[in-house]
Order: sequence, then structure tokens, then C-alpha cells
Amino acid sequence: MIEKLNKAFSKLPGVGSKTAQRFIYHLLERDRLGGLELAKALTDAMEKVKNCEKCRTLTEKNICEICSNDVRDDSQLCIVETPSDIHVIEQSGVYTGKYFVLSGYLSPIDGIGASELGLDELEVLLSNQSVSELILATNATIEGEVTAHYIHNLAKKYQIKTTRIAHGIPLGGELEYTDINTIAHALSGRKDYN
Amino acid sequence: MIEKLNKAFSKLPGVGSKTAQRFIYHLLERDRLGGLELAKALTDAMEKVKNCEKCRTLTEKNICEICSNDVRDDSQLCIVETPSDIHVIEQSGVYTGKYFVLSGYLSPIDGIGASELGLDELEVLLSNQSVSELILATNATIEGEVTAHYIHNLAKKYQIKTTRIAHGIPLGGELEYTDINTIAHALSGRKDYN
Repeated sequence: MIEKLNKAFSKLPGVGSKTAQRFIYHLLERDRLGGLELAKALTDAMEKVKNCEKCRTLTEKNICEICSNDVRDDSQLCIVETPSDIHVIEQSGVYTGKYFVLSGYLSPIDGIGASELGLDELEVLLSNQSVSELILATNATIEGEVTAHYIHNLAKKYQIKTTRIAHGIPLGGELEYTDINTIAHALSGRKDYN
Repeated sequence: MIEKLNKAFSKLPGVGSKTAQRFIYHLLERDRLGGLELAKALTDAMEKVKNCEKCRTLTEKNICEICSNDVRDDSQLCIVETPSDIHVIEQSGVYTGKYFVLSGYLSPIDGIGASELGLDELEVLLSNQSVSELILATNATIEGEVTAHYIHNLAKKYQIKTTRIAHGIPLGGELEYTDINTIAHALSGRKDYN
């Protein structure tokens, strides 16, 4: 029984057998109620959380809270790779538009093409809705860049302006310890000082 | 629903809100079945795992596998602080006797006295059973030492020999980076070279 629980915990990212053992003894010896609550919350989430019908983020409703919030700006649409990206952008508190979640990034070698990413749904959104700016917030990886480029071309068809989030030195970062590609981006993306 | 699950995960030792978020998105996006299996395994363990009637370790049976194993030596009894200590000693593969699990260590200031540790049950075991050696494997902390000392005095009453696991330089350890207390233990515990 304990071994079975150990195996189930070990499937979580970054959790090995030793960490799992630590979780298990903690729960069994000190917090059985917490263990049962975790089991209940897990079952609920696994069974009831689905994708938002508009932006495809994870939610327990048909339309997520951000999509159904009328105060938010419909004319801005921010494209992200995963629901957790929405989470961090929301925490920054500077964005008031809406989102669209891809299912990862374009990767033809893994069989992930435009339709797997949900780009067909995005195209429907672009053709129907009053989107005036598409903000490309895919990751700063090669795959993220390729995906951003592909969506930029898609948006051109509908004469929608696309922007890409800025890449440069992270706040608190020191030039000496920053990789050369980031430095190159930071230089070519320089802005007027005011 | 996701926030509730986040809170439940965050109660695990060493897991904060960010790690919990990582677990949740992993399960929701890639392994819902694994999430449900984890919930099931958790419920089973929380409801069914109890303490062994003889050695007090965690088990789903009345008497644990080690206690009910007739091949193991009844004359040696190893005292440990927690069930996970049994796990590591078993992995070392050098011990073939039985165990007794304390519920932690003596700590009068926290209201943990002899009866809270299960020392009454240990005494019953010592007076009835054919134990000829009591191996004190409590932690090498002040509390562990105090607890070992207390049990040593208890065993004296029954004329049972007590031994303490060796303290010294860990394998692969370098003297330069070893704390002075460990060095002192290693020196005073030195053995004939053969």
C-alpha cells in the first residue's frame, strides 16, 4: 500500500522515491486528514477541470473567469503556450486584455502541427472578433519563436497587428552573467531613454 | 478547485505554491489518470495504514512483515525514532534482527515523556522476550542521545546488553570538511586496524 502510494507520488515532476517517502511518512504520522483532503481535491480537479471553450485555459467552468470578465479589453489577445503562463502574466498585474492558450508549441517532428496547437480555433477567433492587437508571449526558445512567427503570418491575413513581448536582461540581472544571445537581443531591442 | 488543490499540495513538506502549481498543471495536462491513481492510493493509505502491534512501525497488517518473519533474529532489537529509519537500515542490508519504533524522541519540554514514546510497551517486550542485545539507533542529535541514554538505563533493569550505532566520519567524507564534534567521536571511537 505504501509502495503503491510511493510510485504514484514519484510520477510527479521532480519527485523521486526519497521525496515521495518523505511526503508519505509526513502524512501518515502527522497529517492523515490533510492526506484525505489532498485525495479529495485531486479527484475533484482531475474529474471536473476542463478547457475553457474560448481561450482553452484550464477551468472548471465552460468559459473561464478571464474570458467572461466584461471589464477586460477584448481588443488585445495574448497568445501563451500553457495555462501556467497566464498565471504568471496575471501576477505581474500589467495586462488587462484576454488570452489564448496554445497546446504547447509547433513541433512538426513530434507531430504537433497547427491544428494540434488549436490554431484553427484561434483563426476563427481572429476572423470573428474585434481583436486589434495580438501579443505573442510564447517562450523565448527556438520552438516558441517559430510558433510566434507562424502566428504572426496567420494574423497578417486578417490585417491584425502583432507584437512580441520584449527580450532582454532580466530585472536584477548583471551583464557579466548574462548569455550572449540575451545581450544581443537587449542591444537590438534598445529603446530611447526618457 | 485548482486553488484548493494547490493549498492541499502545499501542506506537503518542502512544497510551496509554485511547486504545487507545477504538480497540478502536469497532472491536468498530461496525466489525469495518474492524478486519480494518486488520489486513490492516498485515500487507501490514510484509511488503512496503522501501527504494527509489536514494533509500532507503519503497516497495513496487524503485525508487520519484519515482526512476522520467523527467519529474523529475535534476540536483537534495534530501537529507531521513526518508520523511515527502518527503511534505510533495511536498505543497508546488514541487519537481520527485529525493530522497535519510538514515536520520536524524549522531549519533556514538548510534553513527550516515556509513555508517549511507547517505552511502556518496550519494557513489556524486554521483560517477556528473549532479547539479548538492544541496538540504540536513535539519531545522533542531543535528543536522540538523551533518548538512547534513557533506554540504556531501562535495559539495565533487565540485564540486557545495549549497544549504540557508531558515530564517525561518513563514507566518502573528508576530514577537512567534517565538523569537530564528529571528529571527536571518530577519534574516541577508533578501532584496532586489521
